[in-house]
Amino acid sequence: MSENGKRRIRLGMVGGGTGAFIGYVHRIASRLDNDYELVAGAFSSRPEVSRESGKNIGIDPSRTYGSYEEMAKKEAARPDGIEAVSIVTPNNVHAGPAKVFLEAGIHVICDKPLTSTLADARALAAVKPARGAKFLLTHNYTGYPLVRQARELVASGALGKIRVVQVEYPQDWLSLPADPGNKQAAWRTDPKRSGAGGAIGDIGTHAYNLARFVTGLKTAAVSADLQSFVKGRKVDDNVHIMLRFQGGARGMLWASQVAPGNENGLQLRVYGEKAGLSWRQDNPNQMWFTELGKPATLFTRGGAISQPPAASMNVRIPGGHPEGYLEAFATLYSQFADVIRGDGKAYAPLLPSLADGVEGVEFITASIASSKADGKWTKLSDV
Amino acid sequence: MSENGKRRIRLGMVGGGTGAFIGYVHRIASRLDNDYELVAGAFSSRPEVSRESGKNIGIDPSRTYGSYEEMAKKEAARPDGIEAVSIVTPNNVHAGPAKVFLEAGIHVICDKPLTSTLADARALAAVKPARGAKFLLTHNYTGYPLVRQARELVASGALGKIRVVQVEYPQDWLSLPADPGNKQAAWRTDPKRSGAGGAIGDIGTHAYNLARFVTGLKTAAVSADLQSFVKGRKVDDNVHIMLRFQGGARGMLWASQVAPGNENGLQLRVYGEKAGLSWRQDNPNQMWFTELGKPATLFTRGGAISQPPAASMNVRIPGGHPEGYLEAFATLYSQFADVIRGDGKAYAPLLPSLADGVEGVEFITASIASSKADGKWTKLSDV
Amino acid sequence: MSENGKRRIRLGMVGGGTGAFIGYVHRIASRLDNDYELVAGAFSSRPEVSRESGKNIGIDPSRTYGSYEEMAKKEAARPDGIEAVSIVTPNNVHAGPAKVFLEAGIHVICDKPLTSTLADARALAAVKPARGAKFLLTHNYTGYPLVRQARELVASGALGKIRVVQVEYPQDWLSLPADPGNKQAAWRTDPKRSGAGGAIGDIGTHAYNLARFVTGLKTAAVSADLQSFVKGRKVDDNVHIMLRFQGGARGMLWASQVAPGNENGLQLRVYGEKAGLSWRQDNPNQMWFTELGKPATLFTRGGAISQPPAASMNVRIPGGHPEGYLEAFATLYSQFADVIRGDGKAYAPLLPSLADGVEGVEFITASIASSKADGKWTKLSDV
Amino acid sequence: MSENGKRRIRLGMVGGGTGAFIGYVHRIASRLDNDYELVAGAFSSRPEVSRESGKNIGIDPSRTYGSYEEMAKKEAARPDGIEAVSIVTPNNVHAGPAKVFLEAGIHVICDKPLTSTLADARALAAVKPARGAKFLLTHNYTGYPLVRQARELVASGALGKIRVVQVEYPQDWLSLPADPGNKQAAWRTDPKRSGAGGAIGDIGTHAYNLARFVTGLKTAAVSADLQSFVKGRKVDDNVHIMLRFQGGARGMLWASQVAPGNENGLQLRVYGEKAGLSWRQDNPNQMWFTELGKPATLFTRGGAISQPPAASMNVRIPGGHPEGYLEAFATLYSQFADVIRGDGKAYAPLLPSLADGVEGVEFITASIASSKADGKWTKLSDV
Repeated sequence: MSENGKRRIRLGMVGGGTGAFIGYVHRIASRLDNDYELVAGAFSSRPEVSRESGKNIGIDPSRTYGSYEEMAKKEAARPDGIEAVSIVTPNNVHAGPAKVFLEAGIHVICDKPLTSTLADARALAAVKPARGAKFLLTHNYTGYPLVRQARELVASGALGKIRVVQVEYPQDWLSLPADPGNKQAAWRTDPKRSGAGGAIGDIGTHAYNLARFVTGLKTAAVSADLQSFVKGRKVDDNVHIMLRFQGGARGMLWASQVAPGNENGLQLRVYGEKAGLSWRQDNPNQMWFTELGKPATLFTRGGAISQPPAASMNVRIPGGHPEGYLEAFATLYSQFADVIRGDGKAYAPLLPSLADGVEGVEFITASIASSKADGKWTKLSDV
Repeated sequence: MSENGKRRIRLGMVGGGTGAFIGYVHRIASRLDNDYELVAGAFSSRPEVSRESGKNIGIDPSRTYGSYEEMAKKEAARPDGIEAVSIVTPNNVHAGPAKVFLEAGIHVICDKPLTSTLADARALAAVKPARGAKFLLTHNYTGYPLVRQARELVASGALGKIRVVQVEYPQDWLSLPADPGNKQAAWRTDPKRSGAGGAIGDIGTHAYNLARFVTGLKTAAVSADLQSFVKGRKVDDNVHIMLRFQGGARGMLWASQVAPGNENGLQLRVYGEKAGLSWRQDNPNQMWFTELGKPATLFTRGGAISQPPAASMNVRIPGGHPEGYLEAFATLYSQFADVIRGDGKAYAPLLPSLADGVEGVEFITASIASSKADGKWTKLSDV
Repeated sequence: MSENGKRRIRLGMVGGGTGAFIGYVHRIASRLDNDYELVAGAFSSRPEVSRESGKNIGIDPSRTYGSYEEMAKKEAARPDGIEAVSIVTPNNVHAGPAKVFLEAGIHVICDKPLTSTLADARALAAVKPARGAKFLLTHNYTGYPLVRQARELVASGALGKIRVVQVEYPQDWLSLPADPGNKQAAWRTDPKRSGAGGAIGDIGTHAYNLARFVTGLKTAAVSADLQSFVKGRKVDDNVHIMLRFQGGARGMLWASQVAPGNENGLQLRVYGEKAGLSWRQDNPNQMWFTELGKPATLFTRGGAISQPPAASMNVRIPGGHPEGYLEAFATLYSQFADVIRGDGKAYAPLLPSLADGVEGVEFITASIASSKADGKWTKLSDV
Repeated sequence: MSENGKRRIRLGMVGGGTGAFIGYVHRIASRLDNDYELVAGAFSSRPEVSRESGKNIGIDPSRTYGSYEEMAKKEAARPDGIEAVSIVTPNNVHAGPAKVFLEAGIHVICDKPLTSTLADARALAAVKPARGAKFLLTHNYTGYPLVRQARELVASGALGKIRVVQVEYPQDWLSLPADPGNKQAAWRTDPKRSGAGGAIGDIGTHAYNLARFVTGLKTAAVSADLQSFVKGRKVDDNVHIMLRFQGGARGMLWASQVAPGNENGLQLRVYGEKAGLSWRQDNPNQMWFTELGKPATLFTRGGAISQPPAASMNVRIPGGHPEGYLEAFATLYSQFADVIRGDGKAYAPLLPSLADGVEGVEFITASIASSKADGKWTKLSDV
């Protein structure tokens, strides 16, 4: 049972075999608050790899499957079958399993971006889930307590009308041609598996989603300049975008995989008529908030704060004891478990949805189109 | 099974009932890497509270016990009985259960400080564990990857001979008289349950242990000035200590619970003939290292580093994605699981031991004695 | 005499009367290294204000003038007349005096931006200075030692070919409608005096110049989105620009006067194939430099560094003792004094020139044009 | 004239010849606000060096003297003689000139520590200055605007009763045996010239003075552990001191010249019943202030603050434009000029006095005595 006396959700996994990074992260996230029990998996499209991976992490061999279709069918037929599934495959293998599981009435937890093409995304959005199956997109940065607090601050009017949004996600790990032996790099730089975008899809969407999550502003149009700096690379590795929001706010988004000295430098800054805030992922337990004409204040996770309600922020340990990436990821998982169990009404609006996923792919598509059109301002609905 | 295909250890817990902070932390730590399965508990000395707590977290009622003695006896008799137990009670209830379980051949994971009296500590050290039962003291800060790296840097000679050690652990949460309703504060400020010390035992020992862990220096003597600032408080809430190490190095230790603006500001700085380093818990994914005459460098967890071996540091996710307190805690748990399973030889020297626990209580006792003697330099062996 | 046994330059000032900010700064800058002696001034276009201001700062009344034309004429005729003049008036009163003094053979030190219109800038560039009179534009941020070092690092090839340049200059002081009584705000938000631009001219040019100074990259084109957020404001107060450099590098520039929590947050980040660097004005004694695959290093002003030669950086005090804005400003002054005295050959390439000033106004003009054309990529030579 | 229309003070200098660091700093400080005119000097005890130095910085040869005695006598006799003198010699040559000039009715600005022996300090305190000559000790860190604000915050009661004071001043420049060619290092490590102390006198007194200046607390006793780590060094290079203040507050002071990675890391932290603050010299334009139970706030120099009056803080430029070491030094000079001119009543209590200097030497002496007595708590009045 979970820490709160709630029953655990039976979980399956698609992808995440030996050597995969994000599958491992999803498993920790599912475990941390004890809201799930991983009982089945199709860990690889190669059956023997799937079997071996399942064995390594202790899955009953009879529930380690060679394909996600098989898993969906057999698990749906079991009385103790999985209630939810985590999809942690490359981008081009999200839509397929998501559709199958939703139609089997199994809740879906899917890594981002939603799909590798806009057609896939829109088709997936049209799927009718059986038995009210729910969908969670793991834009994990929205799970950080202070990101939740930032959203609440904006919503409360503490910043006044928003004017300027600066968001960025610089990395340096693809500054050189990708090592063919690096599984993470290989599929991310292969347009067939990642989709048309490189940095724009892998980290640009995270940055975009974070800005949207915190500000609540709707996007009017984007003007993009995407670049591929590394010789031979087939997808973008640096993204410059100007943003116009409905209501008049303006923004800038920078994502890069070729910026030496940056590991995972996701940063958001939001400025309104009355106040501004800023937050960085590499020290996520701090957030700056400054009211115009007053000294800057530093909010800390679990610190001297009053809103939003601590429950929605899922603060596990006292302020000053750092929480990190895995805890934020786990918060999405545990709050989605509450949604599944029917007592997560309060959290549902905080959890990235299928619609968010479609918008993310529209953002990618519109940005690529704008860049090809020499920076033409492009609406998401234009693509 | 664990993420590495290893079997899970059957775990029990003493203390940690509803509302307890550190029991909750131990449970997450035991779960994060999937190396343990919590199957039994004596969660409270009040049987009905123990039962209710066990029920909330999903323990089989037949394995929720009313006392740790009962649990030790019955679990030792089961073929599927617990192999290890976590002791997460107030300080004065560490020695009792630790002795019982060690003598029952059950491995012990015990919160710090080891005991509330030096007599208890030394008696516990004299216990003969049955069937090779092992002991882990959860000085959790030693589990941070960069703390491990700091230790390795010192051991490698990169700093040269150590001259100066500055360690501190300021907090502010006891700046006012403790709220009687705050369970955490209540026992920590009650000399009967915490031992003679207040801040010295609760956080001073952490700071002391961290300095010892990283530098490997043995303590020659301490000169202490302990103070109780809050009216009516019966234990110290501010600790000033000068340290002399064998071989000539000098140090200072400051621990405080009355320093407004500090949440859990554990910080260690070490200076040798050739280089210096510094690390802070509130941003634990960074460590400064500066060679004399060169620019300062910033090491990051999982970043561009080569030593010590990543395995010993238990780096789970890429650099720039922050890990925190729970991950460090979990690393002690998962490496102790390897020790229990017989494949943790490489980690054993890194895990805080019963001997470290005895030294910690000696440190507390010697510091209190020195302070009473107006700062007289006092050896740990003098008490 | 200066600290180095060199004779002091006789200096005059245009503008900078009582209550003016930047004139006061120029005076301190001229004095700090003792390379100038202020002996004359036309401190205001209102003669009585000029007289009063001159009296307050100890100028001989016979050399306090009612107009810059009068000053140029009379001083040029004196055997002990001024050798150089500082022009510290609003933007629209730069071109006039600059022309007059250059044609009188008096060296000119002029605040930025060069002029309020491009026509003025180009006309000024066509002026033939008498007797080799030199020109200095006070893009003062280029005087910071670490900015000099950043330039040298790029020039040395330490970063490899530059790919990405991120520069920004956020402020918050104009978040509300300008107080009519604030002299600084009044002329800066008046298009007649500041030129067509607001933030773009006041701080955007500083950011642009800094990026150009450090990287040496030539600009290919700009795509801008300028905005005026404060009701009734006639000039831009937020500037978003994407940059394309010759040779393929890309950049972003953000300047804002409506970003609460930012005082003078000038920041430059440069990323090349081999390394990256970043520097912020609000802590200008530190600069990050990170080689790909190595830990980040922190260079400090006057610290453990070897290049460029300390002389060109004008390091006055040991590392760890902070220098600031006034010292950087003073370095431009003192190195220009060397140029005037004929022994500044080494520094001349480091000092912002009239050509830099023309380019700055082209940048302003092109950005405004691009913004009006909905972000059309615009070359500086197109305007 | 100064920037405020006040007449300039005629200044002389003792010491500060070519190659001297602190004399150069004093000259810049005297010049920055234009409150002084340097017109005479005895720059070295070797007459030819004095002459050469005077020539280099533009002093009339007839007013460049071979000894301070000669300078005092001749300048006192001139109608346009110096009104004030800066003493910037090694510690053992402070008392001599200070006495002579005070008795000649010339105001004295003296570098710290006051003298190299306590006897000298007390003798100097007994001198009767002629014609009301004043004395300024350049504990320059007290000139930082935020240090002034910290003092005001404490005095206002914003922190409540002070409990804990942590002050430190680590450096690394003497980690190796001093280069005999380094003039700064040579006299500082020579007990004859520096006095009995090394780090304790050079930087320990600065740290002590800063703590006293900000808190206003009077010292009850010190318990010290001084160490000399570098082989062959005759004075201490690492200082550990526990402090007891009258009224019950406790403190720690650490000063070190052998801490690699520290340039001039002066830092002060003060904790009271209601709030805490901290300030570091290496980024002196920021100060943390945290009220118990509220988020930390960051005060900036010239930022959104209201007290103390800006005038006493001598804020020259807007917040976010950094000021540094030279500006703080200059503030002592310019406010002392006001004292000399009779309009500095408001600043007088802020300027380090002869009495502060005597206390500083008592602090040095008591600390050395305590360290020799194995850390015995020692009152300043005991030495």
